[in-house]
Amino acid sequence: MTADFSRLSLNQITTQRWSLRQAIEGCARHGIPAIGIWRDKLQEAGLAPAARWVREAGLRVSTLCRGGWFLAPTPAERQARLDDNRRAIDEAAELNADALVLVCGPGFDRDIQKARAMIEEAIAAIAPYARERRVKLGIEPLHPMVAADRSAVVTLAQALNMAQRYDADLVGVTVDTFNIWWDPELYPQIARAAGRIHSYQVSDWPVPLPDTFMGRAMMGDGVIELRRIRSAVEGAGYTGYIEVEIMNRAIWDLPGEEALRLMKERYLAHV
Amino acid sequence: MTADFSRLSLNQITTQRWSLRQAIEGCARHGIPAIGIWRDKLQEAGLAPAARWVREAGLRVSTLCRGGWFLAPTPAERQARLDDNRRAIDEAAELNADALVLVCGPGFDRDIQKARAMIEEAIAAIAPYARERRVKLGIEPLHPMVAADRSAVVTLAQALNMAQRYDADLVGVTVDTFNIWWDPELYPQIARAAGRIHSYQVSDWPVPLPDTFMGRAMMGDGVIELRRIRSAVEGAGYTGYIEVEIMNRAIWDLPGEEALRLMKERYLAHV
Repeated sequence: MTADFSRLSLNQITTQRWSLRQAIEGCARHGIPAIGIWRDKLQEAGLAPAARWVREAGLRVSTLCRGGWFLAPTPAERQARLDDNRRAIDEAAELNADALVLVCGPGFDRDIQKARAMIEEAIAAIAPYARERRVKLGIEPLHPMVAADRSAVVTLAQALNMAQRYDADLVGVTVDTFNIWWDPELYPQIARAAGRIHSYQVSDWPVPLPDTFMGRAMMGDGVIELRRIRSAVEGAGYTGYIEVEIMNRAIWDLPGEEALRLMKERYLAHV
Repeated sequence: MTADFSRLSLNQITTQRWSLRQAIEGCARHGIPAIGIWRDKLQEAGLAPAARWVREAGLRVSTLCRGGWFLAPTPAERQARLDDNRRAIDEAAELNADALVLVCGPGFDRDIQKARAMIEEAIAAIAPYARERRVKLGIEPLHPMVAADRSAVVTLAQALNMAQRYDADLVGVTVDTFNIWWDPELYPQIARAAGRIHSYQVSDWPVPLPDTFMGRAMMGDGVIELRRIRSAVEGAGYTGYIEVEIMNRAIWDLPGEEALRLMKERYLAHV
């Protein structure tokens, strides 16, 4: 039996030192059928060339990372963020991405409840355009340790509460093992997410954790029950790509070829 | 109007370089009516002298920190942990502490659901002895960022689910602002905790967070809505002490007198 990589996707931040073109070519060389693209890398490459490279390589784009980051102190700044989200929706449409990931961003003062209400308003403001462009939005709950600096959305239950006001094929969630593995409500909430899981991302949680952002580990090097969570996600009907997204200096310092080999090996062994 | 410190308690880890005797004398000098005592400091001092110093200083002991840390791979090790928890209950009784804080500890493999079930069994094993000694147990949910290395109990909802199998005046929760401020379910769960809040601890969450354990800030130096949370805790009927518990190298490096002055000033201004 040959190894099955038909569900594997490389989130390109895992090979952060590669350009988008290098990451696309790496996926093609390694038989990885999909890629998660970051907007900063997309901007360097240009949208039209990027879309052409992806097509020519026969890849699918599992996610565009990322929209969101909605909040700012002034109405003008918030409007600029909404405009930027509409550009992200255009890019996701052009790339035919399975989902635009929404990292909703932090508040700008101590009132986290107000921040959450403003995030809901912002999603309501961009959802009609996403529907028009046929782009699925995946609200990503981040880990509560970054509630103050990256996302006021921190649990799957909360993300689902926000998503359920919309059709399931328009607004759903991005399930990332690193962010949600600790949650006592994890399995009931994954079940509740049926039909709304627009992206599934994996990495591992090392002990001790070296950093709140750069501390992610390769699958197998941490404590997350990756197989149990995948099984629950698939039990909720998810049939999309499984994207490996790792921010980790040591992995970034590997030659890209080696990072992909390691990722494939660990994917088979642990995911 | 004179400043009101009648609810203030010094958790002695805030003045980590002080011995227990120094911390007791510091509280007495500063008109702080209560102290949270750590077991390592208690062991250095001896239980009988410590109880006498506390009585002579006219202090209340708001918490003994800490019981818990229940899990270990072998039955013999787990039995030793239960025995140690019974000693902690004896100490809390001798000190007439308002509560014994339970930091339940991490699991010992990847199965966090099993760890949680084993924690419930451990609490069931020690609860009868706590009742006999009239010691209240306060299960403390820690922040999810330490789920793998300090506590598999990470939300107030989860701690309350564990506590509700017992009489409210036997098993309740320890509410610590640093651990729970991010929770979308915070206010409903504080309301649900009515009658079961056995300890209330405060500190602040700085941005960026420098460390998962030593990263706590003095009240006012972070993003936690301390007044709103205190108001909710009091709305749930809590009338006990408000304990300042801060692990922070810069605060530990202050002369103890200065740390207490700062703490009192910030307590009045922000808590």
